[in-house]
Amino acid sequence: MPDPAAALSPGRNISHRRYDPERRDRIIEVCLDVIAEVGVAGVSHRRVAAAADVPLGSMTYHFTSMDELLREAFNRFAHTVSDRFAQRMSEATNPDEAERAVVTLITEDVFGSPRDLVLSHELYTLAAREAAYRDITNAWMSRSRAALELHFDPLTAVLVDALIEGLTIHRALDIEPQDPEVVIQAVRRVTASDSGRTDSERLRRR
Amino acid sequence: MPDPAAALSPGRNISHRRYDPERRDRIIEVCLDVIAEVGVAGVSHRRVAAAADVPLGSMTYHFTSMDELLREAFNRFAHTVSDRFAQRMSEATNPDEAERAVVTLITEDVFGSPRDLVLSHELYTLAAREAAYRDITNAWMSRSRAALELHFDPLTAVLVDALIEGLTIHRALDIEPQDPEVVIQAVRRVTASDSGRTDSERLRRR
Repeated sequence: MPDPAAALSPGRNISHRRYDPERRDRIIEVCLDVIAEVGVAGVSHRRVAAAADVPLGSMTYHFTSMDELLREAFNRFAHTVSDRFAQRMSEATNPDEAERAVVTLITEDVFGSPRDLVLSHELYTLAAREAAYRDITNAWMSRSRAALELHFDPLTAVLVDALIEGLTIHRALDIEPQDPEVVIQAVRRVTASDSGRTDSERLRRR
Repeated sequence: MPDPAAALSPGRNISHRRYDPERRDRIIEVCLDVIAEVGVAGVSHRRVAAAADVPLGSMTYHFTSMDELLREAFNRFAHTVSDRFAQRMSEATNPDEAERAVVTLITEDVFGSPRDLVLSHELYTLAAREAAYRDITNAWMSRSRAALELHFDPLTAVLVDALIEGLTIHRALDIEPQDPEVVIQAVRRVTASDSGRTDSERLRRR
């Protein structure tokens, strides 16, 4: 489909169309950069268009509203994080490796960069404010739990998911370093099965 | 101390001074309302002054910067939430009551209102973005853990604090109702002592 904006300033934009077929995709990606930089409140069609180096008309051509753009951007972000999460969990081949994978998620992967940390909190704040965005966070949680259920029963998966959330947030918002041993202990306690093994028995097993 | 702004529009503001000695305090409170309504990004001296019904000059008289106002506002918010938290934990008189208090914190108290939910996430986002604000979140966590240490060892207190964070966030950002039994199970697992009792033994004890 032709981009109506291209007709308005032909030279530059026709070449953009020709060599940049993934324009919509790129706008979504750049929108995340803009959110990371100035927050959801600072995002405008104009600012994203400038950052993506596309004409303003491209924005309304590709997205019916700012809401659609934000939803696409945050959906992409959530999928990027949960793909990494699922990858980590799928590589574990036994319960001990699954526990270690969860520890790694907490200490290394989730909020692995300042950008991811800020984008997560921008999304949470948006969803806290506007319930309509909770389908994105809900779907994200469902994917996380499905990845955890490769190794844990559904109840444990919910608990581990909550623990990862709480520990990563506290780790990120604290000014004191988090003791890695705390994370290991936390994961062991929450994943402790009801089979009758106690925490201390599980520890001796290692 | 006289409010310099009062001299500029005498009638109204002198009466404000006379009957409103807690003006600085009120500005802080109103600032939280403004943050809840439009977010940190939307806060300006002008908007807070209008909402608090004080002259613009009062803002710069009472606060050297927007940073000072935001810090005061979020510190007050964090203290309000942690006072409620500490109160709840101090009322428990034995381990079972402490566990129940934690369940109540998760299911009723924390993010008890949409306003608290939004303000918490606005603070987290600000602290994620600007590390200087992490002394507020750090002090908040320290108070929570001190309240939990009335009943739990320090490691368990950190775990319970993280679990409360994760479960309340997931509860708030989900579109499906959270099973209260999940919360109870989660708290029991995380508070399970290392004394050799297993989860199932603890459950039978009830």
